[in-house]
Amino acid sequence: MVTKAYGAYAGDKPLEPIDIERRQPGPNDVQIEIAYCGVCHSDLHQVRSEWGGTIYPCVPGHEIVGHVSAVGSEVTKFKVGDTVGVGCMVDSCQRCISCDDGEEQYCEHGFTGTYNFPTQDAPGHTLGGYSQRIVVRDRFVLKVSHPAEQLAAVAPLLCAGITTYSPLRHWNVGPGKKVGIVGIGGLGHMGIKLAHAMGAHTVAFTTSESKREDAKALGAEGVIVTRNPEEMEAHAGSFDFILNTVAASHDLDAYTRLLKRNGTMTLVGVPEHPHPTPDFSSLIFKRRSIAGSLIGGIAETQEMLDFCAEKGIVADIEMIPVQKIDEAYERMQKSDVRYRFVIDSASLAA
Amino acid sequence: MVTKAYGAYAGDKPLEPIDIERRQPGPNDVQIEIAYCGVCHSDLHQVRSEWGGTIYPCVPGHEIVGHVSAVGSEVTKFKVGDTVGVGCMVDSCQRCISCDDGEEQYCEHGFTGTYNFPTQDAPGHTLGGYSQRIVVRDRFVLKVSHPAEQLAAVAPLLCAGITTYSPLRHWNVGPGKKVGIVGIGGLGHMGIKLAHAMGAHTVAFTTSESKREDAKALGAEGVIVTRNPEEMEAHAGSFDFILNTVAASHDLDAYTRLLKRNGTMTLVGVPEHPHPTPDFSSLIFKRRSIAGSLIGGIAETQEMLDFCAEKGIVADIEMIPVQKIDEAYERMQKSDVRYRFVIDSASLAA
Repeated sequence: MVTKAYGAYAGDKPLEPIDIERRQPGPNDVQIEIAYCGVCHSDLHQVRSEWGGTIYPCVPGHEIVGHVSAVGSEVTKFKVGDTVGVGCMVDSCQRCISCDDGEEQYCEHGFTGTYNFPTQDAPGHTLGGYSQRIVVRDRFVLKVSHPAEQLAAVAPLLCAGITTYSPLRHWNVGPGKKVGIVGIGGLGHMGIKLAHAMGAHTVAFTTSESKREDAKALGAEGVIVTRNPEEMEAHAGSFDFILNTVAASHDLDAYTRLLKRNGTMTLVGVPEHPHPTPDFSSLIFKRRSIAGSLIGGIAETQEMLDFCAEKGIVADIEMIPVQKIDEAYERMQKSDVRYRFVIDSASLAA
Repeated sequence: MVTKAYGAYAGDKPLEPIDIERRQPGPNDVQIEIAYCGVCHSDLHQVRSEWGGTIYPCVPGHEIVGHVSAVGSEVTKFKVGDTVGVGCMVDSCQRCISCDDGEEQYCEHGFTGTYNFPTQDAPGHTLGGYSQRIVVRDRFVLKVSHPAEQLAAVAPLLCAGITTYSPLRHWNVGPGKKVGIVGIGGLGHMGIKLAHAMGAHTVAFTTSESKREDAKALGAEGVIVTRNPEEMEAHAGSFDFILNTVAASHDLDAYTRLLKRNGTMTLVGVPEHPHPTPDFSSLIFKRRSIAGSLIGGIAETQEMLDFCAEKGIVADIEMIPVQKIDEAYERMQKSDVRYRFVIDSASLAA
């Protein structure tokens, strides 16, 4: 099945139209006509080979929503016409302890990412959601129950949503907890919405006074402008949990010292350049932790989507035709988006 | 009450005999004739002002055991003749959330350390256990139930013991858990004994082949020589918990990558020079944590002493007269002690 897509043939080339092949659905497969695909920072890093290891042609995109157009003979959970989503994973070993625990993102044999991972399909590596259609093993397909008119804004939940939801749940964020969200971008704006919806006292950290009102509009009960030392100092030792969504190298100590005894700061952005080494005595003197977290499992992703549908939560998005992707990347690098670009997949037909 | 002690008048001077003043016991005080005092690395750092902030004269020592010689009118838990211990703390605010939780080591107003902390007693700062006698508020005095002949070897439990016991308990070390202990020194040798006694599969990390048998004798089920990359690699992703007792700057990644999904490495040594910045992606890709932990609370210290008495656990020690303290420091810096020096306080009378 030839499918129109958008991708790059090399790290230094702009994205362009590419015809790709999708496999015929096997017995356990779901074929999805993609309606929208969110634009994640990972897309940009991967397609430009900034992390190394990119296999070309590269078709990014792992925040996929659309409708089922065919199902394999053994698929019982989905039928043609269903509204569904696909996130960062399209397969895993299904036989290790992490897969058994429903945490496929930590598969001991490595999960199969939605793009740039080995596959038996042509051309030998997975191709992502900047395309009209995708065929995915049913276990990795999610049900979307939001109203149809919200569908585009649901797309970013598949990566930005679950990447923030999972650590907030894992570290028991909820009523009575004071939670900080560092970085108000694609991930962080979801973190604010989700922590607030979970009932936590949610505080956003931002570098600029101008984002104070934005953060409150997203649901933050408090906003700390990190450039104001006295504002930071006033919150020393007060946070139960801090979700740090900033991947750029920065001073972690400024945040760890805001944690209570037993508090944890969890990083979800893989830094391109190392963060300065943290002050470990700040961990020792309050039994604080610095942790990491990666997306979330499939069952948890479904739980997150259902939670968001129930609470009326979607991402704040700016829709673009796929032809504007390079411009979107430029703007994303300048944080000039509130808060996630989403590709209208109909534009691929143009 | 004039009391013979041993301390320093400046960071660049050797320790020497000093006559110090101890207060008359108040209503809630316990007066203790010190029998033995363990020698901790902190003593050396503090007395030589390597951490800065040392107030002179400095009398170190916070691994104190001895016998009660007087009690205040309101003291009910102790009587003259009791065998007791005093660790790193002699007071705390007793009204903050951490004190309420029995975690005085994290007192929100700062606990009063056994030496070098402000006090109303002369000369205005606390003076430690390198002395014949100490007067301590009853809440900070511990009962020792080991046999009398083990008393000298009990002394190091008051710091090295609780510093390792507390994180092992906090992170639920026990049967079915694989636990690593990094560094086989004063702290680490206690960590091995305690983790083993808690029922965990205990693995010691050492830099030298020569310590392999020593580690097994201490109770380690396994020993990894860290200079052998293939030995390290064989344990990748297998540890539930790693207790890292090494304060010297070192590569943390070598250990974090040995942690399982959800595993934690806890540091208990305050580094003099920063550790190289860790690979945070190693935390992200397995939801691992790096944490810190500081000694333990008073109730937990009593629990540890009782646990050790029940299990027959003491430190491995080398006894010295106080006059040999500078030589002991020299040897300690070369890790030439198995595994803790203990001062025989009788030598102070000499």
